[in-house]
Amino acid sequence: MNIFTQHNPTKLYFGKGQISQLSTEVRQMKVLLVYGGGSIKQNGVYEDVINELKKVEATIFKLPGVEPNPRLTTVYRGVEICKSEGIDILLAVGGGSVIDCTKAIAIGAKYDGDVWELITRKAPIESALPIGTVLTLAATGSEMNPISVISNWETKDKLGWGSPLVFPRFSILDPTYTFSVSHKQTVYGIVDSMSHALESYFHRTKNTPLIDAFIESLLRTAIQTAPKLLEDLTSYDHRETMMYLSTIAFNETLLNGTDGGDWGSHRIEHALSAVYDIPHGGGLAILFPNWLEHVLEEDPSRVKMLAMNVFGISDEGKSDIEVAKEGAKALRAFWNSLGAPSRLSDYDIDDRDIELIIDKTFIKPGVGLYKELDRESVRDILIRSM
Amino acid sequence: MNIFTQHNPTKLYFGKGQISQLSTEVRQMKVLLVYGGGSIKQNGVYEDVINELKKVEATIFKLPGVEPNPRLTTVYRGVEICKSEGIDILLAVGGGSVIDCTKAIAIGAKYDGDVWELITRKAPIESALPIGTVLTLAATGSEMNPISVISNWETKDKLGWGSPLVFPRFSILDPTYTFSVSHKQTVYGIVDSMSHALESYFHRTKNTPLIDAFIESLLRTAIQTAPKLLEDLTSYDHRETMMYLSTIAFNETLLNGTDGGDWGSHRIEHALSAVYDIPHGGGLAILFPNWLEHVLEEDPSRVKMLAMNVFGISDEGKSDIEVAKEGAKALRAFWNSLGAPSRLSDYDIDDRDIELIIDKTFIKPGVGLYKELDRESVRDILIRSM
Repeated sequence: MNIFTQHNPTKLYFGKGQISQLSTEVRQMKVLLVYGGGSIKQNGVYEDVINELKKVEATIFKLPGVEPNPRLTTVYRGVEICKSEGIDILLAVGGGSVIDCTKAIAIGAKYDGDVWELITRKAPIESALPIGTVLTLAATGSEMNPISVISNWETKDKLGWGSPLVFPRFSILDPTYTFSVSHKQTVYGIVDSMSHALESYFHRTKNTPLIDAFIESLLRTAIQTAPKLLEDLTSYDHRETMMYLSTIAFNETLLNGTDGGDWGSHRIEHALSAVYDIPHGGGLAILFPNWLEHVLEEDPSRVKMLAMNVFGISDEGKSDIEVAKEGAKALRAFWNSLGAPSRLSDYDIDDRDIELIIDKTFIKPGVGLYKELDRESVRDILIRSM
Repeated sequence: MNIFTQHNPTKLYFGKGQISQLSTEVRQMKVLLVYGGGSIKQNGVYEDVINELKKVEATIFKLPGVEPNPRLTTVYRGVEICKSEGIDILLAVGGGSVIDCTKAIAIGAKYDGDVWELITRKAPIESALPIGTVLTLAATGSEMNPISVISNWETKDKLGWGSPLVFPRFSILDPTYTFSVSHKQTVYGIVDSMSHALESYFHRTKNTPLIDAFIESLLRTAIQTAPKLLEDLTSYDHRETMMYLSTIAFNETLLNGTDGGDWGSHRIEHALSAVYDIPHGGGLAILFPNWLEHVLEEDPSRVKMLAMNVFGISDEGKSDIEVAKEGAKALRAFWNSLGAPSRLSDYDIDDRDIELIIDKTFIKPGVGLYKELDRESVRDILIRSM
């Protein structure tokens, strides 16, 4: 293991009815409610939140309309409200996009310049408004981590950033709030959560038996649970398992003591959905198995571990590369069986913009760690994905 | 899963050289250094701590001589120093006993009455001094949890208690600080850590696939690592694995969403070592396999899961009880192979004081949850252990 600091200050309220904790966390304050489309008004979550806030006589301001890939322009709108109204706390009600947008608003509200300077690391993040979240989608893990992804549509950039200052102060996770998530969005959430665990797994740190075993456990649990959930989208038990699993998959539990894993395919996916605005989970389902096939040719070791320990593939009479290839195939087959796409052509994407996607992948230097990718490697992964 | 709140405020600094973080956490304050026998002076830890504290010009007060089963009389001495000197922060340098003693001092220092009233829950815990720890023994998990165990030798009571106010503010875990721990103490630490995971495993909560898989992973990792560590007590890698594992085994990670597991054998062990002052890990090694054999006769289900998923025992052609019995046997055999005791007679304990031990077990009502034990059950487990 590497030396590390483990400190996650987020307070997680998990389970049915935990919305009642909102009134213990938010008092008579000015609250900016950040949310997306109308879904929280249809499924009752919005009403629950408003009722709790009214109990404590909070003053409610609203920022609706956060996009699935949240945009800088929306962040600007939120920052403006915070500054003009003197907001005390931000409350994100939604999935990862809403939370990510809220994190950017939180730092922008405390900064005199343009928040894009903070996101692009041109200026240091020194302060942030406190954030609470009410989660309605199990996917990104943003509810218990210090990470956010923001899209700038002017420059067609989609950028990940983070700061310990944007760990949510509290997050409320009620599995019933995810009952109305569609079959397709549920699939994307499963792929995204599993990708976080998979990318954490591809580190180069020695002596990490406990973390590796935790990751393998989480992936096996996802593989066992996902098909049952998709058969019965209002199963409390399966929604509960996936909601907790997706939080753990990316709340730093699986990164303690490692070099942080390899987020190369996430980087390529961000570039891809910056250009095409496709769903993040869909992009990952296509790219990650091809990333596996690309890296295993150089070093099959951990892909082989994945094949054996997660997919139960036997290595009897096979070379390391053969076992690893079976692992990559098994992952693709599993995601396909859930209904996830497997080719970029499923989104009518061909090789027309391939150089632009490669450019966008390298918006920040250093892509990949298990294998550091160059332009040629990214091109190879994209072509395999066509 | 049950509804739950997950919140662990302890900041963990893990890895070689992390003692340098001490000076970021403690400033020009009045620090009470709490420690045990002379071992930290022999292995260099004491010197490292003093050097760091001197850097920030902290004023150092000392409470040496904390016992392996920390005593109320020592807590009183610490509380007295805190009150008379106006201590700002407590720094525990040692293993679980030192940290547990420090937690009791922290609440006593802020209480006008007798701290034993707080420990016995006759008065509520409302305030505590902040605590930091420098860990020198991988065992109890006290470095990242809100739990403590204190022995009152006047009444021969050994009592577990807890409060969110005594989570350490920070803990420094440097595996090299455990290099000088003896073979025997290392074995006890392994047994204690594994017991925490085992006791967490024996819950009655439905739909807990991820937590169950994490516990099984942790136990398998301990089983793989322990024999290698005992072959080479100064192996950084194996000390590192066991140090991290023992913290995770009891920092609430393995309890999220369950009913909390079954701590019946811990309760019996506390009673036993209150009467005989034997090592906690030694007592657990004897009692836990017999607890397993006692409970499996009524309900073998989770003992069977343990047998299959942790010890790889096949269920082919066997009844549930047969598989479960093999599991209990495998655990005892594993601990014996490390050199842990398996019979109370190894400590020259016979059935003379059995009724007293049973009395002490029930010092607080409610012993056990997977199976709630009555006096007859505790007697049965003790007799099996003779």
